[in-house]
Amino acid sequence: MCMRLSEARVAIVGLGLMGGSLGLALQDRCCARVGVVRRQETVEAARRLGAVDEATTAMADAVRGADVVVLALPVRGIIAAIPEVAAHMKPGALLMDLGSSKREIVEALSAIPEGLLAVGGHPMCGKESSGLENADASLYRGATFALTASARTTPDAMNLAADLARGCGACPLILNVDEHDRAVAITSHLPFLLAAALVNTEATTEEALPVTRRLLAGGFRDMTRLAAGDPTMMLDTLQTNRNEVVLALDAFERQLGEIRRLLDDVDGLSEWMRAARDKRRELFA
Amino acid sequence: MCMRLSEARVAIVGLGLMGGSLGLALQDRCCARVGVVRRQETVEAARRLGAVDEATTAMADAVRGADVVVLALPVRGIIAAIPEVAAHMKPGALLMDLGSSKREIVEALSAIPEGLLAVGGHPMCGKESSGLENADASLYRGATFALTASARTTPDAMNLAADLARGCGACPLILNVDEHDRAVAITSHLPFLLAAALVNTEATTEEALPVTRRLLAGGFRDMTRLAAGDPTMMLDTLQTNRNEVVLALDAFERQLGEIRRLLDDVDGLSEWMRAARDKRRELFA
Repeated sequence: MCMRLSEARVAIVGLGLMGGSLGLALQDRCCARVGVVRRQETVEAARRLGAVDEATTAMADAVRGADVVVLALPVRGIIAAIPEVAAHMKPGALLMDLGSSKREIVEALSAIPEGLLAVGGHPMCGKESSGLENADASLYRGATFALTASARTTPDAMNLAADLARGCGACPLILNVDEHDRAVAITSHLPFLLAAALVNTEATTEEALPVTRRLLAGGFRDMTRLAAGDPTMMLDTLQTNRNEVVLALDAFERQLGEIRRLLDDVDGLSEWMRAARDKRRELFA
Repeated sequence: MCMRLSEARVAIVGLGLMGGSLGLALQDRCCARVGVVRRQETVEAARRLGAVDEATTAMADAVRGADVVVLALPVRGIIAAIPEVAAHMKPGALLMDLGSSKREIVEALSAIPEGLLAVGGHPMCGKESSGLENADASLYRGATFALTASARTTPDAMNLAADLARGCGACPLILNVDEHDRAVAITSHLPFLLAAALVNTEATTEEALPVTRRLLAGGFRDMTRLAAGDPTMMLDTLQTNRNEVVLALDAFERQLGEIRRLLDDVDGLSEWMRAARDKRRELFA
């Protein structure tokens, strides 16, 4: 196995926003960056943008020469690609991914042939505009990059994965799959659903009361920003983290029930609101 | 009655974020701006910041000389101040307010003595940092400024109120109390409650799973920004718009129920998410 990121050939499978940004961020951090894409026009766009050193539609060849392979696809695309990509990887090479739910992905990583290495990854960053054309070298900077071990993770494999996270400017955080999936259901998947539900609530109200849209202000805009993104990625994520998402909805609906109860209890409502304010200020000081 | 904003003496009762910003925005737009505050130290701060031409703790005197009086207080403060302030106003003068719920306020405005004029107002702007020290001359710029008629509203009174809204850079929008209170429950009060409920959901999860806070990213930060504000104003608003807030919670929970149902229906979930994305893009193009 190649132990140093600086000596590694890194293949990035999928050059959308996340894969393209990873390529840009790893410039001069690894020995070579190869992008694997489906369409010839993306090969040309990737070269033009300098997102990778080489881009190709020939997955098997690119993967065969790589020390590290990063799957930058929607979650179900990652799960489908794992056995296929692993079949072409050289012994001792490291397989990673950038998927937002980890249970099914880590199960698939654990099933690749012995002799290969695999670590699950999830960088906590993104933006509403998707696609290679929106790739940004600074996207990962300062973000937490969650890393989850599989049955194919050795200490050296985890160290190399952490180096890749640091190499693109992120902060690696090793945690187990259950912790990850439960926490991101609250911090990422639930907020997305709430944003979309708020937009759809407004849409329903606006049908009966058109003036509603004239009364939208900055608070509503911020609260619904997440809903403007491409739903494709999130759809896979929700499907593969269904149980934790349902628990997150349960926890959130308990808070809504608390609000209903406290509308008849001014002091209680005040205390509930102050607790939220203090906690928000503590989280984002 | 003074028909022109440029000739009006405007008294602003309360120089917090909204009153102070109104004062700054009306500089050179009216004949004189007088601020009415409770504490002597605010008198000095208002002078120092140039938020008004004069500031005083003597409400009766300031109101007696005013052509327009604007109550820039929390909603229940406005309701309490209306009869007290009206008792000192000169015949033909216009009483306005900046409160975020309108039903109880407009009832109180409708009960002031005949010969006085009154229009309810609600500028759709704000920020998380409250107080005169955060006042901002551009806060109202481009915002919708809702205006609601009372039993003391004449066409001239409404015109003067609309001039004041335009004078501070906002866009006046005349609508009735029921429309206003129903729409802002969806566009403003519900988003605030969702932001606070999301923070409190995270806090509960974090107690059992401390790593949760390490996985917070930009989406969560944006979704909870509203919860960082001073709850005092919102507490009054929620209490005085209770029925519409409950209906807004009902509508939102119907969307959450829809999500739960659609977690077993990929195509349906995809369609629901795309509808939200398209609507969000339409609302904030």
